[in-house]
Amino acid sequence: MIYPRRMLILAEGKFSPLRSKTANGAVAFMPERVVGVVDSTCSGTTAGAVLGYGGAIPVVASILDGLRLQPDSLLIGIAPPGGRLPNEWRGFVREALSGGLHVISGLHTLLADDAEFAGMAADHGVEIWDLRRVPEENRRVSRGNWRTRKSRTILTVGTDCKIGKMTTILRVFEEFRHRGLRSDFIGTGQTGILIRGRGVSVDAVVGDYIAGSVEHEIDRSEAEGYEYVFVEGQGALTHQGYSSVTLGLMHGTMPDAMILVHQPTRLEDDYGFPLPDLRRLIAQHEEMVNFFRPTKVVAIGLNSVGLTDEQSREAAQHIEETTGLPAVDAFRFGAARLADAVFGFLKEAPPCKYVGQFRYPGMS
Amino acid sequence: MIYPRRMLILAEGKFSPLRSKTANGAVAFMPERVVGVVDSTCSGTTAGAVLGYGGAIPVVASILDGLRLQPDSLLIGIAPPGGRLPNEWRGFVREALSGGLHVISGLHTLLADDAEFAGMAADHGVEIWDLRRVPEENRRVSRGNWRTRKSRTILTVGTDCKIGKMTTILRVFEEFRHRGLRSDFIGTGQTGILIRGRGVSVDAVVGDYIAGSVEHEIDRSEAEGYEYVFVEGQGALTHQGYSSVTLGLMHGTMPDAMILVHQPTRLEDDYGFPLPDLRRLIAQHEEMVNFFRPTKVVAIGLNSVGLTDEQSREAAQHIEETTGLPAVDAFRFGAARLADAVFGFLKEAPPCKYVGQFRYPGMS
Repeated sequence: MIYPRRMLILAEGKFSPLRSKTANGAVAFMPERVVGVVDSTCSGTTAGAVLGYGGAIPVVASILDGLRLQPDSLLIGIAPPGGRLPNEWRGFVREALSGGLHVISGLHTLLADDAEFAGMAADHGVEIWDLRRVPEENRRVSRGNWRTRKSRTILTVGTDCKIGKMTTILRVFEEFRHRGLRSDFIGTGQTGILIRGRGVSVDAVVGDYIAGSVEHEIDRSEAEGYEYVFVEGQGALTHQGYSSVTLGLMHGTMPDAMILVHQPTRLEDDYGFPLPDLRRLIAQHEEMVNFFRPTKVVAIGLNSVGLTDEQSREAAQHIEETTGLPAVDAFRFGAARLADAVFGFLKEAPPCKYVGQFRYPGMS
Repeated sequence: MIYPRRMLILAEGKFSPLRSKTANGAVAFMPERVVGVVDSTCSGTTAGAVLGYGGAIPVVASILDGLRLQPDSLLIGIAPPGGRLPNEWRGFVREALSGGLHVISGLHTLLADDAEFAGMAADHGVEIWDLRRVPEENRRVSRGNWRTRKSRTILTVGTDCKIGKMTTILRVFEEFRHRGLRSDFIGTGQTGILIRGRGVSVDAVVGDYIAGSVEHEIDRSEAEGYEYVFVEGQGALTHQGYSSVTLGLMHGTMPDAMILVHQPTRLEDDYGFPLPDLRRLIAQHEEMVNFFRPTKVVAIGLNSVGLTDEQSREAAQHIEETTGLPAVDAFRFGAARLADAVFGFLKEAPPCKYVGQFRYPGMS
């Protein structure tokens, strides 16, 4: 597996706050690992000028121009219309491989399965990393391994999808590391996987294996000696399209603690449905795990995009009064309070001790 | 799409109560459409002698012997070890296609994608029907179409997987048809799909599309004018491996009513976990849908395998007292009471009237 340190990001024709999601995630979370962005429609500017973050990272007109920035890899940072790889993009991939760059892709079409690209990568001694490829060992039914786990698991859940579950858990994870606690992060979407260098793209996993695929990642972190494992949440238990993925993550993680992420200014979800009452939603998340083991939602992570600092603090205070839980926008104000809440709860709540039988489906 | 009326079932080396699940499902639910079973290790006997049901359906030694029974199709009724198609089995498929039979398969390996088989099918004017193939139009995020639906939907849920959700809903569905109510059945697993002649194998669908894939089937039934749509449940909300599939089905169906299926003699699930308290589980199922719309668990379907009739009735009575809901083993005693409960509830509860906005993810 490659670990890219100098990424050139392909965002041709789409580099903007809303149309280049993967590119923007890399710029936001790994600016020190991005050497430039390719978009001929806004070359000569900077990421900071286009996105409002990313500082002086230059935007260049072509892959060939980008090669002067001495990248080690090309990250495909946009999604093509329709999901298939347009012919024009094949040219970009060829140029990158010929230029000796690894290619990192979050596209549905797996580039490493393309005979031409695979041959070129071999010829140039580089790798193709498809972030959406689900490794064979992740394709398995959950074994319920939380029952013998020593590490503690923390999962973000949300009142909607695309609300800040990755951002929040990354901030708390970083705060734990900063405090010297042996902590790992498990990416479950493209950007999270790119940041960690491994993980599982749960939206590419069939239903029966969703829980098992994330359990496998936690097993690995545990085997490596991590004491705290932070799992990136996906979807929402009350998102009528993606709820299956959320519940699979919840049961594959069987978290010791959860953080609920909410955006106070968002009143409706993707379907025009009013976001559910926070207390009702918290109870529901706890109950879905409490059938198996004790757990709690211990804090609320806020996404206060569009609010002033003052408004964000007011919204947090209101939510604290309603739920009795600490609430803060960790991206804006730091994750110390959320980390305190998680750490304090885990200290009081001993690790789950499972004393029943241990079987799993297919076990003989 | 073919509609097989005279199936020969391949169960070579495995025809038995526990090792030939798909074969047994066909024999149990469609005996009038099965002309014979192929298993050289027990040829000369009958399905009834081997399984305890299926009566005089003969067991023959080979596909060639089976052709004398004038089948129109070969159903592959067993799963190979490891999931891949063994070489020996390729011979069976070739013999069937050469003999002018359609081939129906629930294997993970899609036979129609095999160039040799596809060529032979074309040459002989027959079709290959892979029950596990997910049609392209089912690969979509749920649109929340229940909000404008006129037909009523009924879903089975369960206290565990492999507990009788298909059997129960089929019996209630048949009872509704018997009463002259315009009713459809949606198969969500291999046997259910085979019985109905269409459906979606939800265990082959990636997480984001589970709800959408079943919603698409309901949309089709509604467009055809069915008033009552019975959806085959899968997994269990409290099955830590398969819960994601269950919740996807619940949110894709957004049922008007649910029937909970339970086996009184089963004390633990696949994981050695005690089955949850019925009342707690009923509340949980209702809440997961009540976030969106009113619904209720209206009856308990029992699987009383291993109990005498008297014991089954006693178990039903105990469950009725505990839950306040009618409970009966519909496979053994008929589905009249369950059908009464569903029909009575739907008559009192008007169809959901949604008056909010109508959007869905990706809608512009």
